[in-house]
Amino acid sequence: MAFVQVTPVLLCGGSGTRLWPLSRRSYPKQFASVLGEETLYQQTARRLSGSDSAFSFAAPIIVTGTDFRFIVTEQLIEIGIDPGAVLIEPEPRNTAPAVLAAALHIAKTDPEAILLISPTDHVVPDPAAFRKAIAAGLPAAGRGDLVTFGIAPDRPETGYGYLELAAPPDDEGPLPLKSFTEKPDPATVKRMLEGGCHLWNAGLFLFRARDILAAYEAHAPTLVEPVRKAVDTAQPDLGFLRLDPEAFARAEDISIDYAVLEKATQLSVIPYKGRWSDLGSWEAVLHETPQGPSGTATSGAATAIDCSGSLLRSEAETLELVGLGLENIIAVAMPDAVLVADRSRAQDVGQAVEALRARSRPQATRAPRDYRPWGWFETLVLGDRFQVKRITVNPGGILSLQSHIHRAEHWIVVEGTARVTIGETTSLVAENQSVFIPLGAVHRLENPGKLPMVLIEVQTGSYLGEDDITRHEDLYSRP
Amino acid sequence: MAFVQVTPVLLCGGSGTRLWPLSRRSYPKQFASVLGEETLYQQTARRLSGSDSAFSFAAPIIVTGTDFRFIVTEQLIEIGIDPGAVLIEPEPRNTAPAVLAAALHIAKTDPEAILLISPTDHVVPDPAAFRKAIAAGLPAAGRGDLVTFGIAPDRPETGYGYLELAAPPDDEGPLPLKSFTEKPDPATVKRMLEGGCHLWNAGLFLFRARDILAAYEAHAPTLVEPVRKAVDTAQPDLGFLRLDPEAFARAEDISIDYAVLEKATQLSVIPYKGRWSDLGSWEAVLHETPQGPSGTATSGAATAIDCSGSLLRSEAETLELVGLGLENIIAVAMPDAVLVADRSRAQDVGQAVEALRARSRPQATRAPRDYRPWGWFETLVLGDRFQVKRITVNPGGILSLQSHIHRAEHWIVVEGTARVTIGETTSLVAENQSVFIPLGAVHRLENPGKLPMVLIEVQTGSYLGEDDITRHEDLYSRP
Repeated sequence: MAFVQVTPVLLCGGSGTRLWPLSRRSYPKQFASVLGEETLYQQTARRLSGSDSAFSFAAPIIVTGTDFRFIVTEQLIEIGIDPGAVLIEPEPRNTAPAVLAAALHIAKTDPEAILLISPTDHVVPDPAAFRKAIAAGLPAAGRGDLVTFGIAPDRPETGYGYLELAAPPDDEGPLPLKSFTEKPDPATVKRMLEGGCHLWNAGLFLFRARDILAAYEAHAPTLVEPVRKAVDTAQPDLGFLRLDPEAFARAEDISIDYAVLEKATQLSVIPYKGRWSDLGSWEAVLHETPQGPSGTATSGAATAIDCSGSLLRSEAETLELVGLGLENIIAVAMPDAVLVADRSRAQDVGQAVEALRARSRPQATRAPRDYRPWGWFETLVLGDRFQVKRITVNPGGILSLQSHIHRAEHWIVVEGTARVTIGETTSLVAENQSVFIPLGAVHRLENPGKLPMVLIEVQTGSYLGEDDITRHEDLYSRP
Repeated sequence: MAFVQVTPVLLCGGSGTRLWPLSRRSYPKQFASVLGEETLYQQTARRLSGSDSAFSFAAPIIVTGTDFRFIVTEQLIEIGIDPGAVLIEPEPRNTAPAVLAAALHIAKTDPEAILLISPTDHVVPDPAAFRKAIAAGLPAAGRGDLVTFGIAPDRPETGYGYLELAAPPDDEGPLPLKSFTEKPDPATVKRMLEGGCHLWNAGLFLFRARDILAAYEAHAPTLVEPVRKAVDTAQPDLGFLRLDPEAFARAEDISIDYAVLEKATQLSVIPYKGRWSDLGSWEAVLHETPQGPSGTATSGAATAIDCSGSLLRSEAETLELVGLGLENIIAVAMPDAVLVADRSRAQDVGQAVEALRARSRPQATRAPRDYRPWGWFETLVLGDRFQVKRITVNPGGILSLQSHIHRAEHWIVVEGTARVTIGETTSLVAENQSVFIPLGAVHRLENPGKLPMVLIEVQTGSYLGEDDITRHEDLYSRP
């Protein structure tokens, strides 16, 4: 086989609640450090980079939502990976439109390109074994198959879809796919596992762009027109490609499995026997975290005393979590929210989020750090008439030219150098210098430097909401 | 009976770990809001104030440690109670020296004074019934008895001392005390409860100053000389009376029960059938907190979903705690520390504190708010080369004239008005104004106003420890 390039398509528009409070709508689990220092998204991008004896990975295509567009590039920069393209979905429409958009985008320049579609919130502890499975799938993809990867089940999981093979897999080569089974009932699962012909559908696919496009044309033709239009009329914006909102909204909200693969022919399965998890619950995270002899796992500033079968996670350095005499308890502590759940209820964490949402608590959906195009901020303290924020501006980051009607602001630069405009005056503000923005003054903050700039903002005023902002000019075209 | 005055002696030098993380060495449970808005100390002071048909309470005598001297007065001011005297123990020596010091102090002016000795970390939900019990004890105290209060036991508690009566109590009148039993074993407790002649010793005592002094002279004569000297040579200091350290250190570290009462004659017991708790563990707190039908109690920003027999407490408005499917779990969340314990281990919370102490974590002993003579502060964020603090200065509060070798400070006043001295210049700094204290500059902060003054301090420098302080002058005589 000739030397082959594989283009990863990283799907990261999803946002679940099952790992709350770590995962929130504003900052879903793929962007969080769930296992190890790097985020799941970073681990995925790293796993799908570099080269193997059989193939090399091209720069990845990222498909994500508006809210996450700066996170996806920032997190790649952190680990030294350049994105090939970042496609912005105007709204989440499940995987079928996302994959189609990526395929259409790359097909413009290279219809023969081999795509590896991958979720970014799963864990695959053995990247070498996984690359071997990809290599095993390349010949099938090269002859026009749509290749799926099937995970050898280690438990009767009813929450997954299954891939049925004609015969039990006996080696690592591709096998024809007989059928898909979506989330079966327990009796069916039991029967399937006994038969040995069923593998988990991990949402990982390998195919040529032109082959998957042909499959969409054949099996989901109504998707093709709107998504093609959304791609063709996409707006380039600061290195992102914003899919056309009007056209994209007309695409059906449906998974690629339902829309295309379940109807397609020429499907192959590569069995994957290595460890894999979709980290679909804290129970799954406990399973993947190194445990002590009593089956308890701790991470961060967490201490377990006489605990068994428990997961204790502190998500902040300055927050000590202590478990005492716990059995089968999951405790996850953050500075603004703490979950304590019985392990048997790990699937019901969404109820915690619902309870907070019903009481309009920001913790239901918003993470403590608010990511913006230019960096991020977090509130350190909110008083009746004052608020203190820590603001980090990335190198080159430029906040909008703005003013506030109800508040004045003090800025103290504590790391790096800021360029500050107030009215007609622009000046550099160095570490340990401060400036005052009077109420009503038109102002702008920039980081002209090469390092992140950190400043402490002290707001004073009678109303301190984020919506007291008049944007006079904005690099990132926000209203 | 003539109209009688009772002088409460509030003992608040104690500091336990059993309600960690709410209670810490730097801020023990009597000063925390364990049940209701007011702190246990405030509830105690309020319960022992005002007047009844039979007697009235005089201003209380407070006995406390150096670290808590400003907290005790501040918390009384908050509820509009004036302390009669505040005696400062140079070091904790248990209750015998503390009660003796209070008795010697009041005996100087009024040896006939009737003292009610009370811990300040207990809960007595029915103050009227409790005052009735005090009234019932007054005749006995008036004829020279040392009166104790015996709580009717509602469970076979091995953690308390017991008072043995000659016969089961049948009304509320005083009965002669036969003996004391310290923390008995389970078999003994069972036998005692069956007999019906044993009540819990709540550490509440009623007697005339001269009678308890006579009892000390008779039964603990070696305590009298050092404590008398500590009182006679006490230094008045900003309204406090600092017991002489050298003399007080010579007093034995012993409880009044062991030192005096167990040996004394003329002891009476007033049975108390109302509810009482020493809140000696989170289990006890759960017991005293209103519970839902499933026996679960929540307080603060805590939500229980399908929980039973559990206590869920969030100690900060901005910290959401959610319990999911928990049975018999205690969870207490603070912004810097979270405890999750099985209820059966409520007595072992000290192990959590020990584990943190072993790792030199400040959460083992220090509360997030650091109380100082002039008010309090808390760290909002600590970076490598910067730290942000919120500082509250009480009206009239004056920080020391100080300088720092390693840090500069920015101050932004967000509530009230500050008087700031930098070098030779003193000026008023109003809300929304800021000042800069250069590294090395001699400076002082005061609140000359009538309302608390709040400022945000942003420190920058290479070393940000509390010990980088040179005090040039200090109202509160600190080194």
